Amino acid sequence: MSPALWDGLHRVSTATLTSELLRAGLRNTFLTGVKPLKPDQRLVGYAFTLRYIPSREDLDFQVDYDNTRDPQRLAVEAMGERQVLVIDARGELAAASFGHILATRIQQRGAAGLVTDGALRDASRMNTLTLPVYCAGVHGTTSSVRHRAVDANVPIGCAGVAIFPGDVIVGDEDGVVAIPSALAEDIAQKAIEREQLETYILGRVESGESIVGVYPPDERTIMDYRASLDPDGHG
Amino acid sequence: MSPALWDGLHRVSTATLTSELLRAGLRNTFLTGVKPLKPDQRLVGYAFTLRYIPSREDLDFQVDYDNTRDPQRLAVEAMGERQVLVIDARGELAAASFGHILATRIQQRGAAGLVTDGALRDASRMNTLTLPVYCAGVHGTTSSVRHRAVDANVPIGCAGVAIFPGDVIVGDEDGVVAIPSALAEDIAQKAIEREQLETYILGRVESGESIVGVYPPDERTIMDYRASLDPDGHG
Amino acid sequence: MSPALWDGLHRVSTATLTSELLRAGLRNTFLTGVKPLKPDQRLVGYAFTLRYIPSREDLDFQVDYDNTRDPQRLAVEAMGERQVLVIDARGELAAASFGHILATRIQQRGAAGLVTDGALRDASRMNTLTLPVYCAGVHGTTSSVRHRAVDANVPIGCAGVAIFPGDVIVGDEDGVVAIPSALAEDIAQKAIEREQLETYILGRVESGESIVGVYPPDERTIMDYRASLDPDGHG
Amino acid sequence: MSPALWDGLHRVSTATLTSELLRAGLRNTFLTGVKPLKPDQRLVGYAFTLRYIPSREDLDFQVDYDNTRDPQRLAVEAMGERQVLVIDARGELAAASFGHILATRIQQRGAAGLVTDGALRDASRMNTLTLPVYCAGVHGTTSSVRHRAVDANVPIGCAGVAIFPGDVIVGDEDGVVAIPSALAEDIAQKAIEREQLETYILGRVESGESIVGVYPPDERTIMDYRASLDPDGHG
Amino acid sequence: MSPALWDGLHRVSTATLTSELLRAGLRNTFLTGVKPLKPDQRLVGYAFTLRYIPSREDLDFQVDYDNTRDPQRLAVEAMGERQVLVIDARGELAAASFGHILATRIQQRGAAGLVTDGALRDASRMNTLTLPVYCAGVHGTTSSVRHRAVDANVPIGCAGVAIFPGDVIVGDEDGVVAIPSALAEDIAQKAIEREQLETYILGRVESGESIVGVYPPDERTIMDYRASLDPDGHG
Amino acid sequence: MSPALWDGLHRVSTATLTSELLRAGLRNTFLTGVKPLKPDQRLVGYAFTLRYIPSREDLDFQVDYDNTRDPQRLAVEAMGERQVLVIDARGELAAASFGHILATRIQQRGAAGLVTDGALRDASRMNTLTLPVYCAGVHGTTSSVRHRAVDANVPIGCAGVAIFPGDVIVGDEDGVVAIPSALAEDIAQKAIEREQLETYILGRVESGESIVGVYPPDERTIMDYRASLDPDGHG
Repeated sequence: MSPALWDGLHRVSTATLTSELLRAGLRNTFLTGVKPLKPDQRLVGYAFTLRYIPSREDLDFQVDYDNTRDPQRLAVEAMGERQVLVIDARGELAAASFGHILATRIQQRGAAGLVTDGALRDASRMNTLTLPVYCAGVHGTTSSVRHRAVDANVPIGCAGVAIFPGDVIVGDEDGVVAIPSALAEDIAQKAIEREQLETYILGRVESGESIVGVYPPDERTIMDYRASLDPDGHG
Repeated sequence: MSPALWDGLHRVSTATLTSELLRAGLRNTFLTGVKPLKPDQRLVGYAFTLRYIPSREDLDFQVDYDNTRDPQRLAVEAMGERQVLVIDARGELAAASFGHILATRIQQRGAAGLVTDGALRDASRMNTLTLPVYCAGVHGTTSSVRHRAVDANVPIGCAGVAIFPGDVIVGDEDGVVAIPSALAEDIAQKAIEREQLETYILGRVESGESIVGVYPPDERTIMDYRASLDPDGHG
Repeated sequence: MSPALWDGLHRVSTATLTSELLRAGLRNTFLTGVKPLKPDQRLVGYAFTLRYIPSREDLDFQVDYDNTRDPQRLAVEAMGERQVLVIDARGELAAASFGHILATRIQQRGAAGLVTDGALRDASRMNTLTLPVYCAGVHGTTSSVRHRAVDANVPIGCAGVAIFPGDVIVGDEDGVVAIPSALAEDIAQKAIEREQLETYILGRVESGESIVGVYPPDERTIMDYRASLDPDGHG
Repeated sequence: MSPALWDGLHRVSTATLTSELLRAGLRNTFLTGVKPLKPDQRLVGYAFTLRYIPSREDLDFQVDYDNTRDPQRLAVEAMGERQVLVIDARGELAAASFGHILATRIQQRGAAGLVTDGALRDASRMNTLTLPVYCAGVHGTTSSVRHRAVDANVPIGCAGVAIFPGDVIVGDEDGVVAIPSALAEDIAQKAIEREQLETYILGRVESGESIVGVYPPDERTIMDYRASLDPDGHG
Repeated sequence: MSPALWDGLHRVSTATLTSELLRAGLRNTFLTGVKPLKPDQRLVGYAFTLRYIPSREDLDFQVDYDNTRDPQRLAVEAMGERQVLVIDARGELAAASFGHILATRIQQRGAAGLVTDGALRDASRMNTLTLPVYCAGVHGTTSSVRHRAVDANVPIGCAGVAIFPGDVIVGDEDGVVAIPSALAEDIAQKAIEREQLETYILGRVESGESIVGVYPPDERTIMDYRASLDPDGHG
Repeated sequence: MSPALWDGLHRVSTATLTSELLRAGLRNTFLTGVKPLKPDQRLVGYAFTLRYIPSREDLDFQVDYDNTRDPQRLAVEAMGERQVLVIDARGELAAASFGHILATRIQQRGAAGLVTDGALRDASRMNTLTLPVYCAGVHGTTSSVRHRAVDANVPIGCAGVAIFPGDVIVGDEDGVVAIPSALAEDIAQKAIEREQLETYILGRVESGESIVGVYPPDERTIMDYRASLDPDGHG
């Protein structure tokens, strides 16, 4: 993706991206119930997935994790720049699915964000990070009571949405959308253009016009919009 | 409703109004799970209802709405001053039920507020409006994926409460209460009086008194309260 | 509990306490879904429990409570310093379980906090208290529509956790943990020590180190940590 | 309660009893979601309540219960004839709340039934009992994983309904209704009469009549009904 | 719809119909969570819709309904042959949405069935009807505690599916599917044909063949299937 | 596992197995909410796992599956004798997760059973199979609307329980328990013995004895039990 598109993705809303994905035939791309820890954060990156299953006492509940074998720990030390850790925590909200020391580590490694359909702990410390963090809840209990990491970079479900490694993950105040990598450039381009048009429409509605003919725009409004982009008519 | 009562409704809490409705025999008037987008907002207006059903692919999912026929769009352009758009979105949180351009338009038309038991999108832009907005969630996906508007100004259920067109809708930080129009003046009057009494009681509790005899107030406390309203005894 | 430990409990996180309880074999000590009204509040105190059952019209729904017999009212006037009112509201979110005048009263009596797995009303007034308040929701309807208090200072369940009178209740931004009284000193001591170690570990991770050997700490890291506590080696 | 009324309660439906309770002002008397293990069973008896809270590892999870101290075991050996064990299991469906050996024992002691808003285990063996059993689910895991009995014969909530010791519990294929003991004779009498009338009305509807004038019955229909009870007019 | 198609609809499964609707682009046509009262029943008819909202004490909770004005009662006496009463009860399971005397009446009027996304009462008497009945639960409490009928033969949502008056409603042991009236003949025709093919495929799988080439059928299997329909090759 | 143990597993209940797993420290082995299609069926076999994620329109929703590449189809043709297909359908109940033709095929291949935490379709045809089938619901819609199979024979979560390929899966009328393969022989042996003891205890309770000293059995009862196994004292 070109730097311009990548930059543009930081400015378009997840609402606009979701609408462009719908125009492309994809209805189920927004993660229901996953919210930003800090409302004004923006997230753009490539999905690095991590899959959890329920824990079992003979395998988990260890006090200390084995950093040379535990898939969660291996994932943390494998993440690179522009990658977003996306965790399939099965929507489990009765224990955390990640903690702030690991979040600090992936931030240090250049990660672009953290997304889970489970809970997080240490919310107050998480809030001191610059890393954009999205979760479905907060819980003080450590992950091993409910979760065992089993593999990374496989296709997962997260908050009801299919996530493949490499999908483009975008987050804003509403939440998180996953764009299939093959569609990402096209969707980004269209969303950036669409948002320009909607800003123009919003301006007219804010000035007191009816939505009739304006939203959705009829041909006349589209023409006016184009003229507004090129006020001198040199287009 | 007299301007004084109308003004008074902006100062009484939904908790006090709900209690007065309970004294009148109505137990189920507060919209469970519907929250303000901005905590300090206040809402007072008359219900203008809009009813949604699940969408169906051969009818919905159009990219553009027909402003001359779609009941949602007709409702937007029919709303007047002091009216609150109340949407029956069946508690559906997996898509939005209204967007910020339409919300801007009803604000321009003088609408008093927007209430839905579904989700909204573009929360960050919604937050720039002066329109008080209440919803049960946030979701980036456009409404047509889940919703189809079928009619307006019919009785609806919203968040488990019966709403009739013209009901008085009041919102504060706790959420939203619906007052049947026939009871509205009486309930408003009693709530304003009740809140005065509770402020007096609170003052005594804040000064360290026991609740015994004070909350609920016994005859002596009521007498003291009345005296406090008329400190010179001129009654 | 010694004053030093008591003070220390105000600084350790519920996440650390929950982990120490897990090391002691207790997995289910954090109240799922119970959130602070104000994010930056801290809570430490002893549980004073209050048990609700569903209300019934021939017993409840009175306009005024009898302060000489109602268990809720008797509890309010029985609470002492360092006590936290913990309400078993059966997770019911369709009515409030406590109001702001009573909360003001227990604050006046020196109570350390208020915790409920139900809803609260008058959130905006609750927010003006210094009392730390935790709840699972907000609802404008008074408690008698759904709740009847039946007894106090009995073992209860709250948000899925067993609470016995006298348990040590600790709350922070994540939520609330209950420490059985018999374990409280030991858990507090270990959590305070653990948090020191985690602060040290976090510092190293923030400086860019890998988690390998550091989190969990290997022997070398533990030795470095101990040296850091005693930089002159006079240990 | 007279033997005739007691017998009558075995023939009236929970639907009719619930309607008579509603006429007396009580709306919330039927246990939502609690179903009979065997559809054709009938239950009539007096409530013997048992209260559970969440279990905790340092108190529960024992392999064997102490029959001299555990409130569940003491309750089993305290139950008498015509009593129905009603368990407040907090709606917890992820473990059983009672097993078939204890159910066999209360059947031997003459108990009239078993009702829980939790789950039961050993459904196939439970089905061999003559004891009427109602539950909200089935789960193979023993109760101590989730439940600890704390007291008996206190007021409880069960499936959202207040149950006091001594309430009259009636069950049929729809489920279970709780009749406050003070109202039981009156409600039973009225329900028996009401059901006779409804049988008459049903007969007329089955013969092809419109519901107009018949259901609800107008004065003429009531007169015809009375005549039908006394076909010779000797009334 | 031709009598042959109508008859055929009684033999094809809702699974097959749902798949044909999916091929036509409609994904959301099966009513989630609505189950037959009697497993072996079959339902085919045209939707006659009835819409409920939450009840309110000043309007409802009457002991007796007004048969000349209540929309529920008017609907009962307006239903004709081949019509299925489909009730939008908002998924409310804490009270019934219809009772057995009214069900008897619509059976007498020739109705083809009863479908609700709420609960029913008097299940044991409902089971004596020949009318096919589908519901989401059973509850002893009469409908007025939760429901007020507001209109009939308007578009509704039922169990998450859009239902328009006149839609073809088909039910079997799995549950209920709604076929938009404009598509009904085409879908019925294709489903009948598809089911013939699947019966052929099932026969081959039952005889021990692999699914490869058979399910889905490749060209050869299709040819074999056609030959099987015309064993003498006279086509 | 020896043939005797294997046979024994067909007679012990999931309740007894779950209790033995609890004695071994494993609390979470029974699949909450997964029920047998036919109550009297028994299931014993080794887990063959299949993992689903949410479907996406550009990848799924095909009318026909590719039997040479689709993981679901490959799994079907890879299953062997004594294997139980265990599907991680994420608890999704708004579409089926498997159909009757594929179920017929795995029955033909000698599979021991089918378990899913999602829904199934064609329940009436599923019921004609001898294959024991367990599911969390029934839905007429084909799986591709919600599910995409991604891999087989990996660790999964199913109904909140960790399932590893090769785990011993046992089902009865209550539902399904998963026994880790390393523990299976030991748990089976203990459960068979335990059930013998419980049958003896049940006999004594059925004969009218108190549970005191009998359940749990004291030393005397254990001695009597042993004598009962060896009535001639030749032990």
